[in-house]
Amino acid sequence: MDNLTVIKIGGNVIDNPEALNRFLKAFASLVGPKLLVHGGGKIATQVAEKLGIETKMVDGRRITDQPMLDVVTMVYGGLVNKQIVAKLQALDVDAIGLTGADGGTVLARKRPVKDIDYGMVGDIEEVDSGQIQFFLRQSLTPVFAPITYTRGGDLLNTNADTMASAIAVDMVRHNNVTLVYCFEKKGVLKDPADDNSVINELYPSLYADHKAAGTINKGMIPKLDNAFKALGNGVAKVIICHADEVAEAVKQGAGTTLKK
Amino acid sequence: MDNLTVIKIGGNVIDNPEALNRFLKAFASLVGPKLLVHGGGKIATQVAEKLGIETKMVDGRRITDQPMLDVVTMVYGGLVNKQIVAKLQALDVDAIGLTGADGGTVLARKRPVKDIDYGMVGDIEEVDSGQIQFFLRQSLTPVFAPITYTRGGDLLNTNADTMASAIAVDMVRHNNVTLVYCFEKKGVLKDPADDNSVINELYPSLYADHKAAGTINKGMIPKLDNAFKALGNGVAKVIICHADEVAEAVKQGAGTTLKK
Repeated sequence: MDNLTVIKIGGNVIDNPEALNRFLKAFASLVGPKLLVHGGGKIATQVAEKLGIETKMVDGRRITDQPMLDVVTMVYGGLVNKQIVAKLQALDVDAIGLTGADGGTVLARKRPVKDIDYGMVGDIEEVDSGQIQFFLRQSLTPVFAPITYTRGGDLLNTNADTMASAIAVDMVRHNNVTLVYCFEKKGVLKDPADDNSVINELYPSLYADHKAAGTINKGMIPKLDNAFKALGNGVAKVIICHADEVAEAVKQGAGTTLKK
Repeated sequence: MDNLTVIKIGGNVIDNPEALNRFLKAFASLVGPKLLVHGGGKIATQVAEKLGIETKMVDGRRITDQPMLDVVTMVYGGLVNKQIVAKLQALDVDAIGLTGADGGTVLARKRPVKDIDYGMVGDIEEVDSGQIQFFLRQSLTPVFAPITYTRGGDLLNTNADTMASAIAVDMVRHNNVTLVYCFEKKGVLKDPADDNSVINELYPSLYADHKAAGTINKGMIPKLDNAFKALGNGVAKVIICHADEVAEAVKQGAGTTLKK
């Protein structure tokens, strides 16, 4: 089986052109088949504001009405995605920008309304790992924007962490998969106030302890739940690291490695 | 050799949701490998206006400074492209949305400044027809936004008519290519005031006569020049027709067919 590295970069990296360029250089240097999933960053919120569209958030999640979905499709699916693809081409990576609709790669359904109506938000139903594998075999590097589609032909806004995890899990059919979440910290921290207190290896029992002690905080919990879920579903390795340290982290010299 | 139909739809179709849906149904019904190139329409101008970016035009061509390129990338490469892809997926067409940067399919260089500085506008240098053919072989239907990229990693705004023509000409290496320009009229008209005065077959000599007589007007001239150029470079057939009549036109029952 081939090795495949699935990397997710968050909005903080995308919002900072120099950080993004540094990350893309490191990403380009990674050996072997790889795949990128990017978040959105603040540009969507800024564009929405200028267009007079109000951004509604509940528990850190965007409520996506149709005008906001259009903005997300423009900014994530167009501007951010294509800029990354063009920059990777210049770094000799034959990148191809995709949403879940492209090649039918990531199908979703509109999230059912329970307590909150999230609007045009997708829960992933099916990843076409065969299609993605076909791109990889052609030496293409897929770059996913966090947008999916429905059987009815609608686009849906989808959480990028979840999308990266779902893709990584389905790619296990064809590859030995490492999933890397890159963000603005050096890994999962023992002490949120100390950037150098990185936990090198995190096990479920240690995760439970840190949650109980409150050292692993709100925003990290869905990320880590996604990460442990991927590990439980056949992903060989999950790493959480700083975007600047992705190359070292893949060689296990930086960040937090999750273990079963 | 396989048959391949390369279709270009213009902005007027994109600006009208019902016309676009009608066109996409007709496009989906076309038998055999096919490829779509879409223009932009007025949405980019409207979005630019709301964002406070001034639209500058010279001789019907947009002057593309960096803020306008960002808008074009958002609207054409994101919103329009992904909406078309998702709608085609719902019509059982396995569409994949691309700019020239994706898979390195259409490389360009920034147009040199002569009398006018067009800004971030691309003149096409190279089409990777092998890459496009590879998508077609996988039963994917490429949907191109009129955006290209440079070796240096910049995106460039590119005329959609020219992009369709350049792709069609390069695809001749692998296919027997028909190129269809869809727009809001029923074909090339003998009398611009009479929508039913369609010229069924247009030869270079007849084209010259109509240009001399002034019946073929300003906007049509670059379109027809592109079309005749494609014909001179190996494209088997070029058709100009109404977007609603694309299925009939491909069977030569509508529109204007150009002949050498």
